[in-house]
Amino acid sequence: MVAEILAVGTELLMGQIVNTNAQYITKRLNDVGVNVYYHSVVGDNPVRLKECLELALNRCDVVITTGGLGPTRDDITKESVADILGIRLVRHEEIFQNIKCFFERVNRRMMDNNTKQADIPEDCTIIPNNNGTAPGFLIEKDGKTIIMLPGPPREMIPMFEDTVYPYFEKKTGQIIGSRMLKVFGIGESEMEMKILDLIEAQSNPTIAPYVSKGEIVIRVTARSKNYGEAMKMINPVIERIRERLGSNLYAFDGETLEETVVQLLIEKNISISTVESCTGGMLASKLVNVPGVSKVFDNGFITYSNQSKIDVLGVLPDTISTCGAVSKETAVEMVKGLIKRTSTRAGISITGIAGPDGGTPEKPVGSVYIAVMLDGEIESIGLKLNGDRERVRHMACLNALNMLRKKILRL
Amino acid sequence: MVAEILAVGTELLMGQIVNTNAQYITKRLNDVGVNVYYHSVVGDNPVRLKECLELALNRCDVVITTGGLGPTRDDITKESVADILGIRLVRHEEIFQNIKCFFERVNRRMMDNNTKQADIPEDCTIIPNNNGTAPGFLIEKDGKTIIMLPGPPREMIPMFEDTVYPYFEKKTGQIIGSRMLKVFGIGESEMEMKILDLIEAQSNPTIAPYVSKGEIVIRVTARSKNYGEAMKMINPVIERIRERLGSNLYAFDGETLEETVVQLLIEKNISISTVESCTGGMLASKLVNVPGVSKVFDNGFITYSNQSKIDVLGVLPDTISTCGAVSKETAVEMVKGLIKRTSTRAGISITGIAGPDGGTPEKPVGSVYIAVMLDGEIESIGLKLNGDRERVRHMACLNALNMLRKKILRL
Repeated sequence: MVAEILAVGTELLMGQIVNTNAQYITKRLNDVGVNVYYHSVVGDNPVRLKECLELALNRCDVVITTGGLGPTRDDITKESVADILGIRLVRHEEIFQNIKCFFERVNRRMMDNNTKQADIPEDCTIIPNNNGTAPGFLIEKDGKTIIMLPGPPREMIPMFEDTVYPYFEKKTGQIIGSRMLKVFGIGESEMEMKILDLIEAQSNPTIAPYVSKGEIVIRVTARSKNYGEAMKMINPVIERIRERLGSNLYAFDGETLEETVVQLLIEKNISISTVESCTGGMLASKLVNVPGVSKVFDNGFITYSNQSKIDVLGVLPDTISTCGAVSKETAVEMVKGLIKRTSTRAGISITGIAGPDGGTPEKPVGSVYIAVMLDGEIESIGLKLNGDRERVRHMACLNALNMLRKKILRL
Repeated sequence: MVAEILAVGTELLMGQIVNTNAQYITKRLNDVGVNVYYHSVVGDNPVRLKECLELALNRCDVVITTGGLGPTRDDITKESVADILGIRLVRHEEIFQNIKCFFERVNRRMMDNNTKQADIPEDCTIIPNNNGTAPGFLIEKDGKTIIMLPGPPREMIPMFEDTVYPYFEKKTGQIIGSRMLKVFGIGESEMEMKILDLIEAQSNPTIAPYVSKGEIVIRVTARSKNYGEAMKMINPVIERIRERLGSNLYAFDGETLEETVVQLLIEKNISISTVESCTGGMLASKLVNVPGVSKVFDNGFITYSNQSKIDVLGVLPDTISTCGAVSKETAVEMVKGLIKRTSTRAGISITGIAGPDGGTPEKPVGSVYIAVMLDGEIESIGLKLNGDRERVRHMACLNALNMLRKKILRL
């Protein structure tokens, strides 16, 4: 079964909102074994909307529309669908009463145009809306299924979950299980070369790699009758990927790098502290965003100026003047001073040039030095990172977290 | 001139990512007088991609594709466009060298499949990509314009701004000037009530308010022949909005709250330090993301545990045991201890319960206390914030920044 999601609304074509509905519906349709082949967005224009509806009905079995079910004059989805399918709209007394009640409940005046929402396509299934006034509709005709849902996600999502998802579950009798692997430390092409034969040999489960915010994601997806069966198909494939990618593979269910690291720290009972220059608290902030981090994290320092590196951590003025504040030597002294102060088992220091200014020919913008200390042993690295200030800082944090992760795994 | 934005990528049809590119491009095309009539999304399937391309070229003057320009085998946008237009792909020596340099710079191995990115459509304009390996392309043929851009926003956006936007500016001879006001400290409905008459009275310039990440944005937009003319129309409107919203209006050109605050600190030569508990470095990280912050920011502290609040800042154990680590009293002692250590003119402390655990009936998740000290004067506040852990932390930072901003304005 193949589906198209058609969003209706000029606000999408003015760039005022992002079409998150398409993502939500797509993910859930995939879960229930319906393939989504197209997303489309069209404005509140009757001619273009009808053309899009005809095209969608022509190329797909299932068409799900979002938006255009409201009370105003430019809400035309219901009318356009009825027109295309050659069916009538009829007044529905119960919906009319419901809309009336809704307005009484929220203490707002019911307008004349609100009654238009009680006119529904004949012979359709009504999809109740408990969070707004516009009901949705499901119509089956000539082997096609058309489902109309309102635009606001807080109305659309419960309607999808309560009525639409169960409809497809019954219809397809199949589910899709998937796990999301994450990789750090090798490039996208290198990763692909290493597992290309696996990707090409598979059809169920499928292996789909992509890049998101500097991290490589590999989604392994299997279709089956039930969840347990799907996992049984997926897990051996993951095992083979793990053999190829080794410790660069750090997550199996979409965990972030910081979640993985905090999990490891808690498991092995390793306390940690941080000191940051160019990242300015971003590393600590990532760690602190993981619930439960208080078990292993007490405090961190942001030493942005040279003087604070000297005052707070005891970095030698000589090291800064000879090697520079952005150097391996300074990073190492920072992490040593940090551990001396905090007595944690693990420590991370980051110093670098995030840009846009401050670069030199020898140390261009994007130069970052990281030192990681674990049980008295120090490892340090120099990186050249690309991108704007925020990305350099973000990638510096990810690299630091990954260094610590690998160091803990070698314990 | 009418445009369609066609996103290519199976990851969009698996629901893995949201098509934010379509929103970005749409907004900017609107700015430059190009109407967007359709968005489409199609997977990495040659047959369906070609059908979508043909349809788009048929119904629009301009087609902008995003995605499918990478090195892997399922990146097929360039090939499909060339095929449809009947043009050849030819090896481009300079791009080939650039890709090689990119890999040398980032110290990664160049793979065979990376060279495919140096094959470009003949007679096209190359759109340089300074943040990745895939260049973009602009082709004019038979009265149509086709523009191919890569999928990752951090590559796509600079390419759009540097090459595509100026192309349309020249072509439409019409510009839309706009300024983006930002508001913090009042709710959306309250703001709208205050300026509703202005919104309704205007057609050119238009006044469009919306909410983004906890901040209210008001975009004022005018169409005109040139930029100076547009600004002359916009500025009196902004003046009237400013009269209504007062100091809650903090930015006129989309600056972030942290940019506004750092700008103020630099202007007034006010040094600042920070100490954070629940935000765990997020506040400092926001400040440090503003270039030039080193003029006013030396260092900051993350005191996540109770003990570190005592050790690093001299908070009294009694205060913590009597009032709690999350209390106005502790926040005040934190900022006092901070200023004592750092001798900066300004200081901010944040302590709170970000969740999901740790809430109590008196202090539920989302309880946050902030203290701001400026030239010896302390102001503190208790907040109840909504949302998940990350949002509570984010909103705590914004509230803290806004408190300091208003305090500086009263100097």
